[in-house]
Amino acid sequence: MERGSRPYRPAFPEPFARVVEALRRLPGIGSKTATRLAFHLLLSSDEERAVLTGALETLTSQLVPCRDCRNIVERDPGNPESPLRCTICRDPARDRAILIVVEDIQTLYSLEKSREFRGLYHVLEGRLSPLEGISPDKLRIRELLDRLNDPEIKEVILATSPTTDGEATALYLSRLIKPLGIRVSRIAFGIPVGLEIEYVDEITLIRAVEGRHPF
Amino acid sequence: MERGSRPYRPAFPEPFARVVEALRRLPGIGSKTATRLAFHLLLSSDEERAVLTGALETLTSQLVPCRDCRNIVERDPGNPESPLRCTICRDPARDRAILIVVEDIQTLYSLEKSREFRGLYHVLEGRLSPLEGISPDKLRIRELLDRLNDPEIKEVILATSPTTDGEATALYLSRLIKPLGIRVSRIAFGIPVGLEIEYVDEITLIRAVEGRHPF
Repeated sequence: MERGSRPYRPAFPEPFARVVEALRRLPGIGSKTATRLAFHLLLSSDEERAVLTGALETLTSQLVPCRDCRNIVERDPGNPESPLRCTICRDPARDRAILIVVEDIQTLYSLEKSREFRGLYHVLEGRLSPLEGISPDKLRIRELLDRLNDPEIKEVILATSPTTDGEATALYLSRLIKPLGIRVSRIAFGIPVGLEIEYVDEITLIRAVEGRHPF
Repeated sequence: MERGSRPYRPAFPEPFARVVEALRRLPGIGSKTATRLAFHLLLSSDEERAVLTGALETLTSQLVPCRDCRNIVERDPGNPESPLRCTICRDPARDRAILIVVEDIQTLYSLEKSREFRGLYHVLEGRLSPLEGISPDKLRIRELLDRLNDPEIKEVILATSPTTDGEATALYLSRLIKPLGIRVSRIAFGIPVGLEIEYVDEITLIRAVEGRHPF
C-alpha cells in the first residue's frame, strides 16, 4: 500500500464508523474529535447514551417558536398545538417600547447574556441573500410588521450582521419601518471590547472612527 | 441581580437545556461548544438529527467484542449471539507470533494507523489500579493467558501507559507470562517524534537516555 499525504485511517466496523461520521458533520468537529467522542460514547453506559439520544429526540418535538418573537419556547403538554409566548415576551418587567431585530436565536441569547438589554426581540430566521435565494418572504418580516401595529413600540434596533447581506437586510427593514413613524436604529460597529487595537482590520477601524462619540 | 465572577447564562427552555447538558458531558466539550452544537442540531432537519440518534442507538446493539482480542466487531445479523472475530484477528496476513497488549481500543486503532505493526492485539479494557479498585479479575487477563496457550505466539509486547498504574500492569503481566517461556517486551519510552527536545520533561528525557540504542 502506498502512503498518501493524508493520514491513513484504519477501517472501523460500520456501526462505529457511522457514529464517527454523524459526529464529524457537526460544526467545529473534525475527524479526530469525532473519533474520540465516538469511543467515549461506545464505552458509556446505555443510560448515558440514552440521556443524549432522548434529549435529541425531544428537542424539536417539545419546542415551538414563540408566537411573537420566534424565540424557542417549551410546548404546552396539555395543549400541544396552542401558540405560546416565550419567557421574555411574557415577562412584565421588559420594556415593550424597544424591539431588537436579530437574525437568529443565538444572537438573542448572546444579548440576554449581557443582561443589559431589557426590551423585546424579533428573530428574522435568516437574512436577505439574493445569491442563496433568500427573499423577504422567507424571513419573518410580515410577522415583524404585524407586531409594529402595537402603538407601544417606539424604537426598532436592527442587529443584523455587518456583512453585505446583513447590511442589505437592515436597509430593507429600515425603509419598511421608518414610514410607520417608528424610530429605527442600527447597532454600532467598532472595536470589539477587550481586543488589542492593532489586531483590528481596517474596515472595522474606519467604522469605529465613523461611529465616534463625544468623550 | 448581582454579577458574579461566572458568566451569567440565560435560562434556555428545558428541552433545549437538556441537549446542551447532555453534550456538555462529552469529553472536551465545554458549555460554549455544547450550546453551539445544540443550536446547530435545533436548526437541523429531522433527517439530519435522525442520522445521529439512529447511529447512536445502534452503536452498541450492533457491535460485539472480538472473541479473541476484544476489539469491536460488527454483530452477525443472521446469528446475533455468535461470538465473532474482528477483521484483524481474521486477517491471514497478520503475524500470529507477536501479540501486543493494549489498555483500550483507541490504542489499538492508533497503532493500526501507523500501518507498521503486523501482529495481533489483546485489549485489556483498563489497567490495574488499587486506588480505583481495578484488580486483575476486572481486566481481560484470563482471556490473555488463554490465548497464550497457542504455541504460535512467541512474543508479547506490553503497551500499557507509562504511568504508575500502567507500569504496575506491565510488571504484573510480565511476571505471569515469562514463566510460560514466551518473550515479553515493553514498548520504548522516549522523546515523541517531531517534538523539540527542549520541551520534553526530565523524566521522559532520562527514559530516552536509558533506552538508547547503537547509532
